[in-house]
Amino acid sequence: MIGSLFVTGPAGTGKSTFCGAFKEWLTRSDYDSIIVNLDPGAEYLPYEPEIDIREFISLNDIMSEYSLGPNGAQVVASDLLIDNAEKIRSKLDLYEDYYVIFDTPGQIELFSFRPSSPMLVERLAGKKGMLAFIADSVVAQTPSGFISEKMLFGSVYSRFYIPMLFVLNKIDLIGDEVVDKIKSWEDDPDLLYGGFLDEKGEMVKDYFLNIINAFKESDIITKISPVSSKDMFGFDDIYSDMSNYFQGGEDTDTEYRDE
Amino acid sequence: MIGSLFVTGPAGTGKSTFCGAFKEWLTRSDYDSIIVNLDPGAEYLPYEPEIDIREFISLNDIMSEYSLGPNGAQVVASDLLIDNAEKIRSKLDLYEDYYVIFDTPGQIELFSFRPSSPMLVERLAGKKGMLAFIADSVVAQTPSGFISEKMLFGSVYSRFYIPMLFVLNKIDLIGDEVVDKIKSWEDDPDLLYGGFLDEKGEMVKDYFLNIINAFKESDIITKISPVSSKDMFGFDDIYSDMSNYFQGGEDTDTEYRDE
Repeated sequence: MIGSLFVTGPAGTGKSTFCGAFKEWLTRSDYDSIIVNLDPGAEYLPYEPEIDIREFISLNDIMSEYSLGPNGAQVVASDLLIDNAEKIRSKLDLYEDYYVIFDTPGQIELFSFRPSSPMLVERLAGKKGMLAFIADSVVAQTPSGFISEKMLFGSVYSRFYIPMLFVLNKIDLIGDEVVDKIKSWEDDPDLLYGGFLDEKGEMVKDYFLNIINAFKESDIITKISPVSSKDMFGFDDIYSDMSNYFQGGEDTDTEYRDE
Repeated sequence: MIGSLFVTGPAGTGKSTFCGAFKEWLTRSDYDSIIVNLDPGAEYLPYEPEIDIREFISLNDIMSEYSLGPNGAQVVASDLLIDNAEKIRSKLDLYEDYYVIFDTPGQIELFSFRPSSPMLVERLAGKKGMLAFIADSVVAQTPSGFISEKMLFGSVYSRFYIPMLFVLNKIDLIGDEVVDKIKSWEDDPDLLYGGFLDEKGEMVKDYFLNIINAFKESDIITKISPVSSKDMFGFDDIYSDMSNYFQGGEDTDTEYRDE
């Protein structure tokens, strides 16, 4: 394994689509990669995973075995991931010089907020793990939605505390102008503050401005990576960040190749 | 309706248990209240709801009707809540001088992060709605867990932007000393910062200190309400906050009655 990207984010932001499209982009760019599906409840996947947790964990079995409905079964299934870490690990070891993309369970808390998940990342990837937080462009196009996504990102980051990308997915749905607007909020908290005022009216003290500035003043969290899994746009940038982290930026030719 | 409390939080933090216990506390204190279950996927409820969304929405029906697995069906079911708002509303109108407790779907994003939910709250409660964010004491006892919970709280708050309580549930599991420690973090960001350093080692710039200070400098978000649904501890405080908001603090006798 060269490095692992654990793809997380709220349900419906396009995690699985991102995983499939990014894998295809890597293949076209001559980088070896595999996808590991970590969602025991996945019904349809837009890719063919090399390793699939559903070989080891069946949601239907859990529902009948523990007499649980879908809600409870999903929580139990996500807690069973750690018990299967060694089995996955031994399969992973077959892919030596590969990037590994981990597609995590559909709803964010089944992975990002389970107590065992940071341990799972450690067991599967050692020190070679990073996270991609997939944010939905449609939600992020309002100031309140953007702030909410950033705080959710921060919440996940606090749990894992490993390098993490803020991937603004589905930008094909909002267009370049809106992407630029979102980026301008990131660069200029006062603009975001003004936008929030326009959207929500009165402001609760300086709460949001403080939050926004806190993000702004931190290097790790300010970068937005706009992508479109549909158009395969922005993947060179994601790759370059990954490569930078895992290999100290030695392999940066992709940036130039695609420009 | 005197006022409505929408109870949200990650799966497993004890939302339904809190709803049931708080309702019992209100009844014992001679305040009229009802519980509305908004979780179409609830299998077992530790209370008897006066109004139940499962009368209108069936997860099993959705699974077969839309050919969906449990994952997808839960998302569809939560999006159907808004279509049933009027039906619930007409039942609510039967309870004039009541507090209404809304128990929301098990996983946080099925309610807190669906685009239609702020509209749902508006339709069900008008201007008489507030949120209770149920945080898990066991998670909140480490600095990183506490920060993560607070940011998740902030993320939800950004979406709804109505008064919101940070309810530290299950304090019976961590004991008074740990509750005091968590409260001291809230009052003194430097202490939390130090704790985070001890826990995680090196710090990414001033990111967390900025975040912590941003929370600290805002009145709306700094208060922690420790409760134990098991012991019915702390409910007088929750009630007093609710009453303050809905009735301008005119009914504050409960505070004294229970002391």
